[in-house]
Amino acid sequence: MISRVLSADLPKHIGERVMIAGWLHRRRELKSITFLVIRDRAGLAQVVLPAARTVGATEETVLQIEGLVVANPQAPGGAELIEPAVTPLSGPADPPPFELYRPAVTAALPTILDHAPTSLRHPQLRAGFEVAAASTAGFRAALDAAGFTEISTPKIVESATEGGANVFRIDYFGRPAYLAQSPQFYKQAMVGVFERVYEVGPVFRAEPHDTGRHLAQYTSLDAELGFVTDHFDVMPACRDAVEGMVEMVRERGRLAMESLGATLPSVPAEIPHVHFTAAMAMISAATGEDLMAEEDLSPAHERWLCEWAEHEHGSELLFVTGYPLPSRPFYTHPDPARLQYSNGFDLLFRGTEIVTGGQRLHRHEDYLAALAARGLDPAPFASYLQVFRHGMPPHGGFAIGLERWTARLTGAANVRQVTLFPRDLHRLSP
Amino acid sequence: MISRVLSADLPKHIGERVMIAGWLHRRRELKSITFLVIRDRAGLAQVVLPAARTVGATEETVLQIEGLVVANPQAPGGAELIEPAVTPLSGPADPPPFELYRPAVTAALPTILDHAPTSLRHPQLRAGFEVAAASTAGFRAALDAAGFTEISTPKIVESATEGGANVFRIDYFGRPAYLAQSPQFYKQAMVGVFERVYEVGPVFRAEPHDTGRHLAQYTSLDAELGFVTDHFDVMPACRDAVEGMVEMVRERGRLAMESLGATLPSVPAEIPHVHFTAAMAMISAATGEDLMAEEDLSPAHERWLCEWAEHEHGSELLFVTGYPLPSRPFYTHPDPARLQYSNGFDLLFRGTEIVTGGQRLHRHEDYLAALAARGLDPAPFASYLQVFRHGMPPHGGFAIGLERWTARLTGAANVRQVTLFPRDLHRLSP
Repeated sequence: MISRVLSADLPKHIGERVMIAGWLHRRRELKSITFLVIRDRAGLAQVVLPAARTVGATEETVLQIEGLVVANPQAPGGAELIEPAVTPLSGPADPPPFELYRPAVTAALPTILDHAPTSLRHPQLRAGFEVAAASTAGFRAALDAAGFTEISTPKIVESATEGGANVFRIDYFGRPAYLAQSPQFYKQAMVGVFERVYEVGPVFRAEPHDTGRHLAQYTSLDAELGFVTDHFDVMPACRDAVEGMVEMVRERGRLAMESLGATLPSVPAEIPHVHFTAAMAMISAATGEDLMAEEDLSPAHERWLCEWAEHEHGSELLFVTGYPLPSRPFYTHPDPARLQYSNGFDLLFRGTEIVTGGQRLHRHEDYLAALAARGLDPAPFASYLQVFRHGMPPHGGFAIGLERWTARLTGAANVRQVTLFPRDLHRLSP
Repeated sequence: MISRVLSADLPKHIGERVMIAGWLHRRRELKSITFLVIRDRAGLAQVVLPAARTVGATEETVLQIEGLVVANPQAPGGAELIEPAVTPLSGPADPPPFELYRPAVTAALPTILDHAPTSLRHPQLRAGFEVAAASTAGFRAALDAAGFTEISTPKIVESATEGGANVFRIDYFGRPAYLAQSPQFYKQAMVGVFERVYEVGPVFRAEPHDTGRHLAQYTSLDAELGFVTDHFDVMPACRDAVEGMVEMVRERGRLAMESLGATLPSVPAEIPHVHFTAAMAMISAATGEDLMAEEDLSPAHERWLCEWAEHEHGSELLFVTGYPLPSRPFYTHPDPARLQYSNGFDLLFRGTEIVTGGQRLHRHEDYLAALAARGLDPAPFASYLQVFRHGMPPHGGFAIGLERWTARLTGAANVRQVTLFPRDLHRLSP
C-alpha cells in the first residue's frame, strides 16, 4: 500500500499517484463535475470527479483516496487529485451539528458545546485550541530556560487551599476530601527542593457563578521561585513566561491566529506597573467615583486601567501591584512598609486579569499570625505548613489561567469557546 | 546588592567577592576551623570560618553568604568561600525528619512520605523527580516532533470511563459525578479534530489495593493517533515516545541517574514483540504450568517475559500483543482474524508493564455491540459515543504511567518514592 500524503504536501507530488485520507469536508456537485474537499490535520485537499461518478459518502465521513496529483492554481495549495479511487474508512457520517464547511461558525455556543467532539472540527473553533497548545508549550519553554523544574502535584487534598468556599467535596475511601483549588502549597513546598518549579495542570473551583469567565475546571500555568527580595523579583519571571507564550504562538500558531483575525501583543522589556492605590486614585479622578475605600478592582476598573496603559504606555499588558491585604489569600506577604497592603500583583491584559501572583509568607509564625488574623483555624493546614518550620527562603510565584489567556488572545467572547469540554454550574458533559 | 551566584558557578569567580544563598546542608565544627556546606539548586558550596567564629544557624536554615571565592581542590567544584558574612533568610530551622546531609537516605518510607516537603530535599530523593521531569519533557518533545497536538481534558466526568469500579465519586453542584480514570474518550474524540493528540495529566483510581505499584492519583502520559491500520501502527509511535523519554533523561537527568546508580535502557529501532498466546505457550513450556486458559499476565509472567526478552533479544523492552479481548477495556478493537483476541498491547520494561495501548473501535455500532456483549448499559456512555456517529478513522493510542516508568528507570522499589505527595488507600496528606 502506498503511504499517506498530507493535504499540505500535495504540491510536492505533482505528477505522482498518492493516497490521502481525511474527512469529507464538502461535496460540491456541479453540472459537469463533482468536487470533494478532504480535510486532514494539515488543511484541505481538492479531489475532482467527473459528474457521472457520484460518491455516496455524507459530509464528515472519513475517506481514503488514491489519485493522481495535478497542478491547479484554483485548488487549495495549487494542486488537486484527479482519477480518484475512494475507500470509506468510517461508516456514513450523521450530519454534524452545523455545517462545518462554512467559513464562519453558524451555531450558538450551547449547540457548539453540546456537540463539542464534532463542533471542534470546524477550523475556526479548532484554531483556539492550537493557540492554547502553543501558549502552554511557550510557558514551559520559558521556564525550562530559566532553570525551573516541572512538577505534578496532588489534586485530591485534605483541606481547601484557598479557603473553604467554592470547593468540590469528594468521597475518598470513605473519608471527606476536596479537589485542589490550586497547587499553591505544593509548589511553595517544592521551592524548598528545586528553588524554582512550575506545573501545568487542572484546578477545580465550585464556582456558583454562571458567567463568561468562570469555569469549574480550568488549566492553571503555575510557577513559584525562591530567593526573591519581594514581588518585584517575581514580576520579571512572569513577564518572561508571557513573552515565551506569545513567541510560541507566533511560531506555532500563526495560521490559527490569522484565521481568527487575532493579533499578538508586544511584550515590553519591562511591563508597566501601577500600585493599587495610584490606580484607584486615577480612576476616582477620571470618573468622579470615590474608590479610595475599595479593596479590589471591579471588571470595569480593570478595563479602565487597560485602556489607560495602552494610551499612556502603549502596552496591552499592565501589572497592578500592592492590592489591599484583605483581598488577597492568607499566604500573601504584606508590604513591610504599609502592612495594610500586600506584595501581591495581578497582570491585566486586554481588559481583564489573566495572572495573579505575589510574594508569599515564608516563616511559620507569620502563617499562624495570618490565619489568626482572618479567624481561620490552623489545624486543617498543619500538614501543609510544616515545611515552613524547616527553613524556607523568601519566595513568590504566579498563576496564569490558560483558558482566560487564550480567550483574550484570540478575541473569544466566552472562555468556554476555548475550553476543551468545559465544566460549569450547568454542564457536566460531553 | 551584589547578585546571587549559584554554587556550581563558584569556580568561575575565583578571586572575587560574591553572594551565594541556600540551605545550611551541614555544619562541621573542627578544632581550628568550621565548615558550612550550603545547598542550592545547582549543588553544594563550601564556606570556611575560623573556629573562633560560630554560626548559630541549625541545619536547613536558609542563609545568604557573601565572601571571597578561593580555589581549593578539596572543596566541591574546586572552589570555596572564605571571610564570609552570613545573613539568615529564614528563621532557625527545626531538625529535618532525618539527616539530609548523609549520602544515603536513612529514613523508612512512611517517615519520608509523612515529611515529604522536607524529605525530598535529600539529593537522592530529589533525583527521582528530576528523572520524572526529564521523562515528561522527552515524551512531549517526541510527540511534538511527530505532529501531535497537546490537549487538556476534563477530570470531572458524568460516568466512569473504564467501568464502574475503582472510581471516586464527587458532589458536583448537588449532582453525582466522578473523577476521570483516564482521558480515554476525550483523546479519542480529539483524533477527530487533530488526528494526533497527547495529554500529560492526573488520572484517578480508587484502588483498594495497598501495593507498591498502585496509587489513587498518578500522572498519565496519554497519546492517540488516527489513520492507523491496526495496533502495529501504534506501537512505533509508542516506541518513539519511550525513546524520547530516554534521550531527554540522558540529556537533563544524567547527574540524577548517576547519583542513583541507575542506567538507561537502549531502545531498539524495533522493540521486539510477542503475541499473548505465544508468550503463554513459552511460559507454560518453561515452567510446566498450564496457562493456555489465562486471560491476562500475572506479575510473575511479566518478569519471566522480561528476562526472556533480555536473553533472547538483548532488549529491556518487550511488546506483548493480542491480549484476550475480555481482559481489555470494551473500547478495544478485536483482532479481525481471531475475534477472541484483541488488537491491544502492553509494553513491558524491567519486569513490569509500563504502557497499555491498542487499536480502538471506531464505528458507533461496534461500540453498542461491545457494550451489549459485556452487559453494559449504553445510556451513561451516550454523550461520549456520539462522536462515533460523525465519522471517525481507525485509530489507537497508548498511556504510560509516569511514576511506574520512573520507578523502573531509577530502581525505586516502591512507586511512592517517585510520586510527589502520593495518594493511596491510607494517605491523603501532606
